[in-house]
Amino acid sequence: MPDHVYKVIELVGSSSVSSDEAIRNAISEASKTHSHINWFQVVETRGHVVDGTVAHFQVVVKVGFRLEV
Amino acid sequence: MPDHVYKVIELVGSSSVSSDEAIRNAISEASKTHSHINWFQVVETRGHVVDGTVAHFQVVVKVGFRLEV
Amino acid sequence: MPDHVYKVIELVGSSSVSSDEAIRNAISEASKTHSHINWFQVVETRGHVVDGTVAHFQVVVKVGFRLEV
Amino acid sequence: MPDHVYKVIELVGSSSVSSDEAIRNAISEASKTHSHINWFQVVETRGHVVDGTVAHFQVVVKVGFRLEV
Amino acid sequence: MPDHVYKVIELVGSSSVSSDEAIRNAISEASKTHSHINWFQVVETRGHVVDGTVAHFQVVVKVGFRLEV
Amino acid sequence: MPDHVYKVIELVGSSSVSSDEAIRNAISEASKTHSHINWFQVVETRGHVVDGTVAHFQVVVKVGFRLEV
Amino acid sequence: MPDHVYKVIELVGSSSVSSDEAIRNAISEASKTHSHINWFQVVETRGHVVDGTVAHFQVVVKVGFRLEV
Amino acid sequence: MPDHVYKVIELVGSSSVSSDEAIRNAISEASKTHSHINWFQVVETRGHVVDGTVAHFQVVVKVGFRLEV
Amino acid sequence: MPDHVYKVIELVGSSSVSSDEAIRNAISEASKTHSHINWFQVVETRGHVVDGTVAHFQVVVKVGFRLEV
Amino acid sequence: MPDHVYKVIELVGSSSVSSDEAIRNAISEASKTHSHINWFQVVETRGHVVDGTVAHFQVVVKVGFRLEV
Amino acid sequence: MPDHVYKVIELVGSSSVSSDEAIRNAISEASKTHSHINWFQVVETRGHVVDGTVAHFQVVVKVGFRLEV
Amino acid sequence: MPDHVYKVIELVGSSSVSSDEAIRNAISEASKTHSHINWFQVVETRGHVVDGTVAHFQVVVKVGFRLEV
Repeated sequence: MPDHVYKVIELVGSSSVSSDEAIRNAISEASKTHSHINWFQVVETRGHVVDGTVAHFQVVVKVGFRLEV
Repeated sequence: MPDHVYKVIELVGSSSVSSDEAIRNAISEASKTHSHINWFQVVETRGHVVDGTVAHFQVVVKVGFRLEV
Repeated sequence: MPDHVYKVIELVGSSSVSSDEAIRNAISEASKTHSHINWFQVVETRGHVVDGTVAHFQVVVKVGFRLEV
Repeated sequence: MPDHVYKVIELVGSSSVSSDEAIRNAISEASKTHSHINWFQVVETRGHVVDGTVAHFQVVVKVGFRLEV
Repeated sequence: MPDHVYKVIELVGSSSVSSDEAIRNAISEASKTHSHINWFQVVETRGHVVDGTVAHFQVVVKVGFRLEV
Repeated sequence: MPDHVYKVIELVGSSSVSSDEAIRNAISEASKTHSHINWFQVVETRGHVVDGTVAHFQVVVKVGFRLEV
Repeated sequence: MPDHVYKVIELVGSSSVSSDEAIRNAISEASKTHSHINWFQVVETRGHVVDGTVAHFQVVVKVGFRLEV
Repeated sequence: MPDHVYKVIELVGSSSVSSDEAIRNAISEASKTHSHINWFQVVETRGHVVDGTVAHFQVVVKVGFRLEV
Repeated sequence: MPDHVYKVIELVGSSSVSSDEAIRNAISEASKTHSHINWFQVVETRGHVVDGTVAHFQVVVKVGFRLEV
Repeated sequence: MPDHVYKVIELVGSSSVSSDEAIRNAISEASKTHSHINWFQVVETRGHVVDGTVAHFQVVVKVGFRLEV
Repeated sequence: MPDHVYKVIELVGSSSVSSDEAIRNAISEASKTHSHINWFQVVETRGHVVDGTVAHFQVVVKVGFRLEV
Repeated sequence: MPDHVYKVIELVGSSSVSSDEAIRNAISEASKTHSHINWFQVVETRGHVVDGTVAHFQVVVKVGFRLEV
């Protein structure tokens, strides 16, 4: 089995619905340009507040994918 | 554009429903006494367990709001 | 009131549904072998990605329970 | 059972006697203005040295209390 | 010498000029409402970028002041 | 000299007397079930507050012991 | 309002003048290839010393920009 | 595919040969009592020095294994 | 001397031989697409375990290279 | 008032009595060779366990003193 | 090329002018007694406040220099 | 048994061979001037890259030794 190398990029997904949806949005965006995404890792969960309610969850994720040899 | 100053306070929201709801509860409470809330940041997610199931999600959040000049 | 001692173990719950469900799965598993579970604390939220979508949320939790005297 | 919200404030207690006493002094001061204090958490332990001996222990504590609805 | 208790609050100062100026703005604002400010500690330095240049330095500071007995 | 392997477990000792006593209580409990305890390391110091005074110091400790071959 | 996704890259700006200038240099370089830069966050401040004086401030910054849909 | 739960334990492997060997020793010991070990993660690398040379590398590792349903 | 700007990317090298080899594999892969690599920094050391032995060391590294002006 | 420079050294004090006494022992030792000690800061609290009881508290402290011009 | 060893010391520079100047003051002091200083790294930025304004920036820096063989 | 005090210094060892060898080089250098070295602890592993390959592993270590009474 070969010794793979992976790259990790950092994205911020946002969603007005939920923090999980913000993660899914980031992964969805990443999958448009990277084809071997394997895992993600949450770095930070933040959000934007408008008129006293949560307008957007913003989740910073590291996304890892295998580099093609 | 003036140089604003923001204050950051730390709250713990709790919810028997979900961790996102715990965040919303904290923001809702903060908005009763602070009028320019801009953002929140999750510091820690904990919870209380009763009879082997999650009774409450408890999410520690930092909440930032602009100070009025 | 006596001075209790608690033990903390680390589990990783997974769920294809949501990160909260991953936590609940870990607590549910822990409650099979430990009877006085009191609290949990999220250590890290990760996930597995298959075909560009989140296949599993994986949440690392510390789970605390009282030791019986 | 309602979903409570708690506030967390940061204090520095000092004591020439011991680090535990510095904590107690901070809690004692906090209890003058907040009535539902539930827990504290030590953030940092520092101290002031005069003439080669510890003059004051200074303990930074986060203090959590329930907000009244 | 009595055992003082200090309170620590968190502010975000901003400045279009420099990061040091952002700190000074936060301290200046804090001194309007607190009279015994003793020290500050930088928690994080961030900034807002507009049209490819730094529009505002935003410095998160903890500000400590002695509570009056 | 053989290459030993050690296990590290996490306990929370509590004490109404002092934070050091909370540590001793955790070690005392651990020594009931583990015979080669070598060291401990404080992870966090917290406490429970009742009626404005510290009711219990709660010290999270990692406890290390040699595994018997 | 759509749910944007942002990318975060890490750069090290250097400057013989000041640490703020090192940040501005990093942002300036990033803006050559990325058009929607929104914010930066200082990760670390280091520097190179030659002949006992600071030759270069080196500031590690995370730079965030919106991905175009 | 079911939602697995994993347990994470903390071990310290030691070796007079190398830090990698210390990791292998910890995994080897863990595999005596746990059958589904999946991954490890280095928490800290320390060592014991005798007569001015490294006598033992001591590597603290978290070891994760799947709990059998 | 000009004020250079560097970019930092995050890679995960793997190796069945050693953790150092995992680092070298990551650097080797990075050098295929980036020509001015200057330094690396280990972020985390993990590994994959199969049948009770270390199958792969996986080392997360940040890799820094000078951007060409 | 001149711009002072301070040096910070790291010591580990030990005591069979208490963790505070371990701090005092470290400061006492430091004061034998440094005359302007100003402050200390606890980095870590560990201990040595013998026969199931705490034999020594070991407290890692940073000790700061003003350099004489 | 030989395998150099470097020593890292921790200093706190202070300045009433700016945080960069506090760094320069620390380096300047260090260069009086160490001849091969190579780099510095900011550990923390604090300050002293008098009468509601910043009296001194205090920057904790690690300073690295090559040990002469 | 007396209450010993230990000093901790920070060194950076380098090696073109391996990261373990970089640690050994740092310990070897430290042992020239300090006679009671007891332990080391890895703070960070970095390296220098030349022509796309690792030229030097650089390991930052804390080295602890007992102060002679």
